[in-house]
Amino acid sequence: MKEFELIKQFFSKQSVSRKDVVLGIGDDCAVLAPIENQNIVVTTDTLVAGVHFPLDTNPKAIGHKAVAVNLSDIAAMGAKPSWISLAITVPEVDEAWLEAFSEGVFELCEFYNVQLIGGDTTQGPLSITITAQGLVPKNSHLSRSGAKAGDWLYVTGNLGDAALALQNILGKAEIDPEFTDKIRSKLDYPKPRVLGGQILREYATSAIDLSDGLIADLGHICQASNVGANVVLDAIPLSTIMRNSLLTEDAINLALSGGDDYELLFTVSEDNKVGMETAMSHAAIPVTCIGQLNASQTISTTLNNKPTPINTVGFEHFSE
Amino acid sequence: MKEFELIKQFFSKQSVSRKDVVLGIGDDCAVLAPIENQNIVVTTDTLVAGVHFPLDTNPKAIGHKAVAVNLSDIAAMGAKPSWISLAITVPEVDEAWLEAFSEGVFELCEFYNVQLIGGDTTQGPLSITITAQGLVPKNSHLSRSGAKAGDWLYVTGNLGDAALALQNILGKAEIDPEFTDKIRSKLDYPKPRVLGGQILREYATSAIDLSDGLIADLGHICQASNVGANVVLDAIPLSTIMRNSLLTEDAINLALSGGDDYELLFTVSEDNKVGMETAMSHAAIPVTCIGQLNASQTISTTLNNKPTPINTVGFEHFSE
Repeated sequence: MKEFELIKQFFSKQSVSRKDVVLGIGDDCAVLAPIENQNIVVTTDTLVAGVHFPLDTNPKAIGHKAVAVNLSDIAAMGAKPSWISLAITVPEVDEAWLEAFSEGVFELCEFYNVQLIGGDTTQGPLSITITAQGLVPKNSHLSRSGAKAGDWLYVTGNLGDAALALQNILGKAEIDPEFTDKIRSKLDYPKPRVLGGQILREYATSAIDLSDGLIADLGHICQASNVGANVVLDAIPLSTIMRNSLLTEDAINLALSGGDDYELLFTVSEDNKVGMETAMSHAAIPVTCIGQLNASQTISTTLNNKPTPINTVGFEHFSE
Repeated sequence: MKEFELIKQFFSKQSVSRKDVVLGIGDDCAVLAPIENQNIVVTTDTLVAGVHFPLDTNPKAIGHKAVAVNLSDIAAMGAKPSWISLAITVPEVDEAWLEAFSEGVFELCEFYNVQLIGGDTTQGPLSITITAQGLVPKNSHLSRSGAKAGDWLYVTGNLGDAALALQNILGKAEIDPEFTDKIRSKLDYPKPRVLGGQILREYATSAIDLSDGLIADLGHICQASNVGANVVLDAIPLSTIMRNSLLTEDAINLALSGGDDYELLFTVSEDNKVGMETAMSHAAIPVTCIGQLNASQTISTTLNNKPTPINTVGFEHFSE
């Protein structure tokens, strides 16, 4: 089966048809006509089989996740996702696999009105690269820089569930079998905070999506904004399953170091704290204040109001 | 070495800094501010090691080619390339390899004033995916559709040299050693017809870049435009090296079926023939008329003014 036949068959079934797409899949390039007074945000993420997802992952989950991790980056800029380009390398043409994979891609695209505008299909070891684009009103995007000493540090949702699921798959953590599916879905079907990011555009001084783990991603904000931060470990939001599966210490560790959360980490000035909390609450998006920025240029952590260096709670516990 | 450190080291050395890039590499997304009254064209191409280039290919050539094949798609739309996103999967951090690869990427980017705005670096089997974007005045892009019966069929440059180089590498074709490097550079360092595409915007009724081979790509134009074509085999432009290395029949075959030419195949109405030839000549871009479109919906070929089905000149000769 030729490359383009394969593309046609599995990736031409989408129901999204945006007005700003002049020419979609099928020519040498897609042609876009973005509306005026908008900036375009662009991000690219690759998922390699065996590295970014276990080899036996459901293909629908792979499709979902490949889109989700990109939309999460767009959310962190406060932008609205609009178009994706999909490059997929597969070892063979497995129709059932491609059907399920494309279902995962399109389900999320339809939910967010994102159009697949093109891509490439090649033969080789399984890997997926998506370039996603989004729109944001001119000069109003969020970024990693912009945080100030004194700003409050927040996260959306709970942290560490995806990492717990991965530890469970690797046989390193036990979970009550009743909750295995639920926690596994946090790893396989992450929900990008697309709406949350757009709301935060009005309130946050900086934002990043949590893909590498809280401490690593907070480090990116601190570096880009030239600030430091104190994280209140007692405040880290943990799911009930997380609390029931691990000792508190281990749970906090995983929440700090595990990646794949795809929640937003962001900073808000004292003046915008209440406004932000109210707006996010109206949108039913849970947020938790987990610390405050300072001028130290380092990241410190406290537990029970006492300075508690991360390594004393066993930061490396789960790393290999 | 962490992902972002690697990106920083090798891919932050570019000298291109475009005014329409509000935020480049280093945040969750790049932020672009395209000028008004322009459409944006987007294309994605993946090169897999061992599939799209021989494993021992010079890394600089891989970097060049990964950019070139994408810019060639942008050229075929009549657009001007502007930004690329680079996703690279490498088995290990080989500094010399990455240095040479990035040199190949940046050399072409600098030549065309294209800015690298982001990407992803992952571990796995060697593969490169680039999403390239370009700008074209609103509603003036070229496409595969738009060709009409009676239009003349043209190509830029010579055909088949890259395929000859590949046959030579595979031990299936001999080339005078004096010219091996020259012909190999047609395979490794293709030159996208970026200027040619922009000139053709004023004259062509349709265009495509030659990546899959003349007959296959002509088929795409015929299908999209709902026309047929007759190709005059005697007119196919062949390099002197090609003519000296192969029997005419074999040379024509390779020019028809071999891919990787990255020349433009386009159609021009009778009225625009002279204007196009003059404009391309002023830009020192060689073009050759190789046939004419008709209403047949099939592709026919003639040799010495006689109908000559492609298979009688041994179309499959070089295929495996």
